[in-house]
Amino acid sequence: MALDTAPVRVGILGMGTVGQGTVRVLQRNADEIRRRVGRELRICHAAVRKPERLHGLELDARVSADPWAVVRDPDIDVVVEVMGGIDPARALTLAALESGKHVVTANKALLALHGNEIFAAAQARGLMVAFEAAVAGAIPIVKTIREGLAGNRIQSLMGIINGTSNYILTQMYRESWDFERALAAAQELGYAEADPSLDVDGGDAAHKITLMASVAFGIPVDFAHCHVEGIRHLQRQDVAFAAELGYRIKLLGITRRCDDGVELRVHPTLIPASHLLASVEGPFNAILVHSDAAGQSICYGRGAGGDPTASAVVADLVDVARTMTADPSNRVPHLAFQADALTALPLLPMAAVESAYYLRIEAANRPGVLAQVAAVLAAHGVSIEALIQRERLGAETVPIVLVLHRCREADLDAALVQMAQLPVIGGEVLRLRIENIDQQG
Amino acid sequence: MALDTAPVRVGILGMGTVGQGTVRVLQRNADEIRRRVGRELRICHAAVRKPERLHGLELDARVSADPWAVVRDPDIDVVVEVMGGIDPARALTLAALESGKHVVTANKALLALHGNEIFAAAQARGLMVAFEAAVAGAIPIVKTIREGLAGNRIQSLMGIINGTSNYILTQMYRESWDFERALAAAQELGYAEADPSLDVDGGDAAHKITLMASVAFGIPVDFAHCHVEGIRHLQRQDVAFAAELGYRIKLLGITRRCDDGVELRVHPTLIPASHLLASVEGPFNAILVHSDAAGQSICYGRGAGGDPTASAVVADLVDVARTMTADPSNRVPHLAFQADALTALPLLPMAAVESAYYLRIEAANRPGVLAQVAAVLAAHGVSIEALIQRERLGAETVPIVLVLHRCREADLDAALVQMAQLPVIGGEVLRLRIENIDQQG
Repeated sequence: MALDTAPVRVGILGMGTVGQGTVRVLQRNADEIRRRVGRELRICHAAVRKPERLHGLELDARVSADPWAVVRDPDIDVVVEVMGGIDPARALTLAALESGKHVVTANKALLALHGNEIFAAAQARGLMVAFEAAVAGAIPIVKTIREGLAGNRIQSLMGIINGTSNYILTQMYRESWDFERALAAAQELGYAEADPSLDVDGGDAAHKITLMASVAFGIPVDFAHCHVEGIRHLQRQDVAFAAELGYRIKLLGITRRCDDGVELRVHPTLIPASHLLASVEGPFNAILVHSDAAGQSICYGRGAGGDPTASAVVADLVDVARTMTADPSNRVPHLAFQADALTALPLLPMAAVESAYYLRIEAANRPGVLAQVAAVLAAHGVSIEALIQRERLGAETVPIVLVLHRCREADLDAALVQMAQLPVIGGEVLRLRIENIDQQG
Repeated sequence: MALDTAPVRVGILGMGTVGQGTVRVLQRNADEIRRRVGRELRICHAAVRKPERLHGLELDARVSADPWAVVRDPDIDVVVEVMGGIDPARALTLAALESGKHVVTANKALLALHGNEIFAAAQARGLMVAFEAAVAGAIPIVKTIREGLAGNRIQSLMGIINGTSNYILTQMYRESWDFERALAAAQELGYAEADPSLDVDGGDAAHKITLMASVAFGIPVDFAHCHVEGIRHLQRQDVAFAAELGYRIKLLGITRRCDDGVELRVHPTLIPASHLLASVEGPFNAILVHSDAAGQSICYGRGAGGDPTASAVVADLVDVARTMTADPSNRVPHLAFQADALTALPLLPMAAVESAYYLRIEAANRPGVLAQVAAVLAAHGVSIEALIQRERLGAETVPIVLVLHRCREADLDAALVQMAQLPVIGGEVLRLRIENIDQQG
């Protein structure tokens, strides 16, 4: 039982926030990590485009400007890819695997788009690709789904998995700000990038829920079929109407196993204000998992940032260090299920999804409008659960807010097409989905 | 890379709620589990005292009334101990290890009291003792601390880890019931045993926080030094006063790393009503972890019951199945840290703990009482942050409720001794601790 106590030799690609965080955490907690793993995790080679990023890190490692030097370094066991982007990250990752190195990555976009190719390359060579850091920062949700709930048939995941949009929605609710003001504040705090589209248009959350769906259900990664809506079109009044109806609006990534396939979608969603998820505020993330034996589980924590993401990178490095000498076939599979046991369940089009809905309709300010709207909905089998209609003296249009019972989205789509043709409807109808999750579920 | 596809042969001791749940989950999710692990987890031998418990389970296994038959069965790889109690569970567990079998156990009392002996026996033989099911049912908190946060220096854990007492406190708050009525309701719902003392007096939570402290800090198991207070002495009015002051009362297991040792304690605790933990209601459990890189993390889920606990048992079986062929020295250590790297940090006596406090003092209904109380506190360097004092016309005594700033418990102890000697104080003073946790922390 002699433990292989040689250091694990780590190469790292990228020295931005997460790369620096990884170096800092490995240095600060070196003793604690060695007590756990029985050996050192040593960064031996770092690829850094801007050498000034190493200032203050006291990194005792070879430094290259060229990331290919790290990938080709024969004295490296594991490559940590925290440079982001698709090119050259994809080629570098494949080359690292080609040369027999395990990979730890925080690159959600890369895996959501090219995961199947990367996992297949790793599988062929008996190598690990660990990606806890790609999903929800410090929250060990990949491990929880993949291992902690391994005895379960997982039914659904619902996650607040983009901190920037969650901060914006929190401020729109708490401070009654409009979207633009909340976005500006997020940018000032450093939560949002100068180009915030990946965050507020849902792409980042979609990358993450795509990866989680694969791990939960044992399906190949299929980002192309993820339905994505962001939060740009939400108005302050929608947040207020939702609150009045007992809901909060959150940008959720949702994936659910149904009889005829898997739902995979990101969109702003009304959830009951009394549910724990509704209280997840600011830059925090949380993922709600429904599974058959465990019931309802929630994991909550910091979803981004240097140190929290580094927490996940290092946890993956520890896992790799522990299993790199093991028989590859007995390791935890990349996507939680054995590579030959993945099943390509169909991803359902949105038209096939069933949901409850929130509608905000800008309608002419005169009697009888609601009756016309209700008639169109009824004609498509869609029924109304609640409504808010406000007098607005002298205004040309007023908002009508409806909460609809569960129906097939195709039926509502058809109703909305017909509704748009009503002369009393002015402008677009805002349609949001509602998830009536029950905290005791 | 040929996968060893022979079934993992499981023996199970006990067929109560958790044993039956384990059989049901393994049967129901057999396909899902095989897709994950690549091999079958097969119950081959079950020890059942009451054979009628097998009705309806269709268990295709050898059945023995004598648990020793399972432990001595040479055709068993892993023993699942879900019988509970110390004797004969301790002897059976040691015997299973002695005969080269891995152990998966849900027995928190056994490990809290005899864990060091059991882990040492396992270590000597290169065997696993997995105990996710012993702590917080379906919540994979052991895995989260041990692996998911392996890169962190963990600072503290705070957990709602006893569902029965949490249900009682929830009802005392929501329905304004007194303790006895809420306990009776818990017993009617099957949450509480006929003898509820292990739940309401804190022993069960103490077993769990003791185990979690070891895994978080790498210290030997030391239940004897865990400070334990239950919730029997709480009155309806305390729950109401706490709410008025912006707090909820929860029975928390707390462990924290300090400069001079480790705090380990279970007691009713006031926490801010706005914190997510305060919204954990009924039979649910949640554990808040503070660590240096991840920051604040929370895991939430069902803390007990057949299926949720079975979820943890099966997850442990999956882990064992994956690593039973691995070099033992590269496996995740029993207590998260290498056996030779455990450090017996001193467990601090309560007198050395620093906390904020809630005091309810039954005092004579006359002027000047508060001044006397404040003077005693001030003399010991304890200062008052807030207070509630109510007129009660004609009453002989009135409650005075004080919120105290953080101080050393020894100082407050001394003040309370002196306070008890004041003629104006009638009866005991209730002292509860306050944790001013910040959700953004």
